[in-house]
Amino acid sequence: MEPLQWWGSVALTALELLATAAFALSGIIEAARKRMDVVGVCVVAFLTAFGGGTLRDLLLDQRPFFWVREQYALAGVFLLCLAALLFMRRRHVAITERMIEWPDAIGLGLFCASGVHQAHLLGMPPMVSIMMGVVTAVFGGVLRDMICNEIPATLRNHRPYAVCAFAGTLAYLLLAALEAPAWVAMSACVAVATTLRALAMLRHWSLPAWKI
Amino acid sequence: MEPLQWWGSVALTALELLATAAFALSGIIEAARKRMDVVGVCVVAFLTAFGGGTLRDLLLDQRPFFWVREQYALAGVFLLCLAALLFMRRRHVAITERMIEWPDAIGLGLFCASGVHQAHLLGMPPMVSIMMGVVTAVFGGVLRDMICNEIPATLRNHRPYAVCAFAGTLAYLLLAALEAPAWVAMSACVAVATTLRALAMLRHWSLPAWKI
Amino acid sequence: MEPLQWWGSVALTALELLATAAFALSGIIEAARKRMDVVGVCVVAFLTAFGGGTLRDLLLDQRPFFWVREQYALAGVFLLCLAALLFMRRRHVAITERMIEWPDAIGLGLFCASGVHQAHLLGMPPMVSIMMGVVTAVFGGVLRDMICNEIPATLRNHRPYAVCAFAGTLAYLLLAALEAPAWVAMSACVAVATTLRALAMLRHWSLPAWKI
Repeated sequence: MEPLQWWGSVALTALELLATAAFALSGIIEAARKRMDVVGVCVVAFLTAFGGGTLRDLLLDQRPFFWVREQYALAGVFLLCLAALLFMRRRHVAITERMIEWPDAIGLGLFCASGVHQAHLLGMPPMVSIMMGVVTAVFGGVLRDMICNEIPATLRNHRPYAVCAFAGTLAYLLLAALEAPAWVAMSACVAVATTLRALAMLRHWSLPAWKI
Repeated sequence: MEPLQWWGSVALTALELLATAAFALSGIIEAARKRMDVVGVCVVAFLTAFGGGTLRDLLLDQRPFFWVREQYALAGVFLLCLAALLFMRRRHVAITERMIEWPDAIGLGLFCASGVHQAHLLGMPPMVSIMMGVVTAVFGGVLRDMICNEIPATLRNHRPYAVCAFAGTLAYLLLAALEAPAWVAMSACVAVATTLRALAMLRHWSLPAWKI
Repeated sequence: MEPLQWWGSVALTALELLATAAFALSGIIEAARKRMDVVGVCVVAFLTAFGGGTLRDLLLDQRPFFWVREQYALAGVFLLCLAALLFMRRRHVAITERMIEWPDAIGLGLFCASGVHQAHLLGMPPMVSIMMGVVTAVFGGVLRDMICNEIPATLRNHRPYAVCAFAGTLAYLLLAALEAPAWVAMSACVAVATTLRALAMLRHWSLPAWKI
């Protein structure tokens, strides 16, 4: 492998681990809010970090799951849970929540790019590819809220989150239709989704309220 | 194709679309009640319209999913969500709810016939075929209520709904055992399930209460 | 088959049926608490009894599901639901709950052994095998609580349950690594998980509380 390529792949893996950790931490915090025990913290963290990608692989019938191929991610989330149980105190929660906003936005972009790319490679029609991108990015959080007995926040807080993933998948499909190489289309998807999410956070954008 | 057959298949597709729209609308109404945003409305509508059939295909290991083969259904539900977001007001909700009762009853019959037929074709044993018919018909609604953080209405409102699907699958299996052609068995299933559901609505039948 | 082997297999099937009945009964009791109707009781009982194993088979891509191969289990749970609807009264609930604690502990061991063994046979890495053992043992109960609109008890009641299954899977993997025959490793898994669960119940062990 060329040195540049090697550095690129190291950077990508580092970003992916960071994003997975951010997703897992948001699960840990939610489990802490519900006063769950060690089992609950681990289950919710795993579900949040791997739920979206697993649902995508299940729907697209792709095996082995990515967490079977990349076991270090499983081990990493497990260690993160143990660390949180040992060291996390109430006063850390708000700080952690603010700190994970940015890696979470990166995760939104990466996860949605991986979903739309995988569906597109399998020859899925555009509407299905879009759906797979969005599902990969948001269903970890949806499953987290469902197991914590809440209406999923992303379905009703009027903050752009799934919508950013949606825009990212459109960018991917547009570039793929123009026969751009895969890495260009995926980078554009990540850039669009993450930038929109970052702008939405910085400018406090909100989705139009429904007149009902 | 013969003209009669052609008209039959057009009528069936029209009925299926009507039923899918009714299921999607019941999801949209539930999302509106929970004051969800545009993302929530779309997710709940898709889950209600396609959840039961997707769970059936997942359990029977059938790919591609019917919404991958029949993309116009996906596009139709998406347009329905947009239309509801633009035009639906509070005063329309009760009317819509009453209007979808009948297409919903037709959907109950059609979905349950498709479930039991597919399982039977795959050589599943009778108990599993019955279960697949009922799952296809009712799990869209169950998933809708689960994601909306409610106990699924169909599990506790004592109104015959899943029970009508159950009776329909029995009619199918009886006729299949008598070696009736598939379309006869499926029509009987739809007729039994939809008629029972209609009678249950008109006569306000309710399931016996449990003495507990 | 040798007589001894034959008796062994009869005893194992009897234990499995007992454990499945215990899981189903815990679902029936939960459905009764939520005042569900006959449909709700059946759905929750099936989900509790077969949910964990089905999720395992779905994740490991194993078909047919065990409840397709072993239909008598489906029929048994259905008859149990009917019997509960006919004969169970409020005063029986507390007694039943106490009576199922022991078969439930046996089920915890058996289900977790079947999960870890199946994953191990398929060549899954250790972390995934552990996860499959725990998922098989506890996700029936998790799905039961989710459909009943509760935070899953096993995630927050600080009583060792999933943790016992976890210990059992470790015993299995240790013996498998030492190249013990499968039945030895599985027996050790059942013994460790069930004994720990029994001790946890008898001595009222509880998981350390999280300082948050």
